Amino acid sequence: MHNTMTGSSKTYPGPRPLIASRYAELAATGAGLPAEIVTNQNIIDECNLIASDRAVQHSIGIKERRRGAYDEKVSRYLCEAAEMCLARANLDAEKIDRIIYTKLIGEHLIPATALRVLERLGVKRGIPVTDISAACSGFMHALELGISCINAGDDYVLVLGGDRSAVSGRAAVVKDTRTIFLNGDGFAAALLAVSTTQKFLSCYFYTDSSISHFATIPFGSRMLNSGGPFDKDMLNLNMPDGQNIHKSVLDSCRIIADRLLAAARITLKDIDFFITSDQTTLVWKDQLQILGFSPEQSVSCFHKYGNTVAAMTPLNLHEAIITGKLKRGMLVMMMAHGAGASGGGFIFRY
Amino acid sequence: MHNTMTGSSKTYPGPRPLIASRYAELAATGAGLPAEIVTNQNIIDECNLIASDRAVQHSIGIKERRRGAYDEKVSRYLCEAAEMCLARANLDAEKIDRIIYTKLIGEHLIPATALRVLERLGVKRGIPVTDISAACSGFMHALELGISCINAGDDYVLVLGGDRSAVSGRAAVVKDTRTIFLNGDGFAAALLAVSTTQKFLSCYFYTDSSISHFATIPFGSRMLNSGGPFDKDMLNLNMPDGQNIHKSVLDSCRIIADRLLAAARITLKDIDFFITSDQTTLVWKDQLQILGFSPEQSVSCFHKYGNTVAAMTPLNLHEAIITGKLKRGMLVMMMAHGAGASGGGFIFRY
Repeated sequence: MHNTMTGSSKTYPGPRPLIASRYAELAATGAGLPAEIVTNQNIIDECNLIASDRAVQHSIGIKERRRGAYDEKVSRYLCEAAEMCLARANLDAEKIDRIIYTKLIGEHLIPATALRVLERLGVKRGIPVTDISAACSGFMHALELGISCINAGDDYVLVLGGDRSAVSGRAAVVKDTRTIFLNGDGFAAALLAVSTTQKFLSCYFYTDSSISHFATIPFGSRMLNSGGPFDKDMLNLNMPDGQNIHKSVLDSCRIIADRLLAAARITLKDIDFFITSDQTTLVWKDQLQILGFSPEQSVSCFHKYGNTVAAMTPLNLHEAIITGKLKRGMLVMMMAHGAGASGGGFIFRY
Repeated sequence: MHNTMTGSSKTYPGPRPLIASRYAELAATGAGLPAEIVTNQNIIDECNLIASDRAVQHSIGIKERRRGAYDEKVSRYLCEAAEMCLARANLDAEKIDRIIYTKLIGEHLIPATALRVLERLGVKRGIPVTDISAACSGFMHALELGISCINAGDDYVLVLGGDRSAVSGRAAVVKDTRTIFLNGDGFAAALLAVSTTQKFLSCYFYTDSSISHFATIPFGSRMLNSGGPFDKDMLNLNMPDGQNIHKSVLDSCRIIADRLLAAARITLKDIDFFITSDQTTLVWKDQLQILGFSPEQSVSCFHKYGNTVAAMTPLNLHEAIITGKLKRGMLVMMMAHGAGASGGGFIFRY
């Protein structure tokens, strides 16, 4: 049982050991970031908003975000992240056994967007690929599935995440002004490889349907045949209650940390580095405070990339690695908190 | 290397053993079928088509299909399939460790549709759930991931598939008349449980991006910010070349069967029963012929349910079980062939 600030009615499952006959490790990461930088003032001007850059920075912490080119495809940026990741791992793309891509909408409904990445990478082997559909916690879910696939025989699994979510003044749908500054376009890759020693000490995932109304995108297959109006607004992210979203991230952080530590039989003091989803700068800082980490033990890219949905956590991971803050051998707690009330993460030795 | 009828340029990966420290088994199946039966004549009348029921039956084999209620949600039918499956396995829903749902579009983009099923089932434990996005082969991909999750420690994984794809005269988009008779609404469930003995002898999955233009649904996230017209037609299934789709299913059938048999070190004569995706009655019969199975060794529901996308293969599996054709102890080859040029399957002891 647990107590949450949001009053969830659910029982969160207990920790369980990760059974493995073959161990996985995080071999490398990569980032795919569109070149265009969009400031708060750019959005204010493009969308004719009554707002100030200073007030936006003060309230949520964002200064700028990236935005993909007008008609560019998701797979281009995913491929850039994948190529950087493979280069950093010094691995030939032909060696990959599987791609798992976690999308919001993806490049198209059919075929899988991951197949387009495979095509752009020029891979000749027709390896299996899967798109999974999840919000901010999606990359963690994909990593967990990837670890299970390594366990079942794959040698290399490429995990990808991120989608187009930056707002454009040319957009068919101009979003709710309460959320218009939040999102950016960002794409991330991580390569899982087989390891001779145990690197992932524990993993934990949960779902909480009792608070799933906190963030929704209503578009669904029912609309296809309903005959009703096909309202573009159905593609907007609805977050009716920002305060409760904030609280639910902190609940999620505490619950995941407790379960991860219990399953790994260690304490917070054993953790060297903390990676999490930073839906705002404030919610990143509050997570550090709850767990007792210093800002030097973590990274947040929210100020420069915004909420990049599934890419948030892996972009922070990548930033920690390329800036040298996260070093090989460190013990890492990594997690993500997702709209739709799902969350999860890992404790792993980098 | 291989030769395909469609001239694919890809190298299909070889078979690899399924490494397991914990074995999975298929415990039970379930079906969720909307009550409304729509005949070919109903569609002809609703959509004012110049066509005849007899010609449709002759060309693709379909007589009727199911259609969900006007404004009913996907999760209702998925929940019906799940409840039937759990009842047949005599398992309390609280015992499930994970739900994997394979969708076309799903109930909504956020949160996961699988979370809505969890909610409808009244499950109190906040177990992890994942939506995966794939076409006709999606249920097989979800089963493979589910088997890996059992291997990694889950005791029970519920796999769900199916979406709304039946055409309605009230639809906002009336589909291409070449494909308007093909689809139906159907939903399926399968429960994987941990087993003391090996039941899944082999699995095989591939992707072929060189033939991915055979079937596409162009809708994607790029449209959100493009500012261009948001054309409802982007949600239509485009199949510009039905003959090549047919050939690609037969290629896929042969390739998967070869790899599955090689990995399990058995021959076709050892297989008792054959389950596959039947995108038309003809392509079901052609698969039987290629592999040398009799119609008594397989099941096709295409004539009464049509193409139910990811649910096709598991609905055939369920039909084989409830009609008593597929008996415990039989050795089964099960596969699905997906638009977007992905396919895969298993050899397992039922």
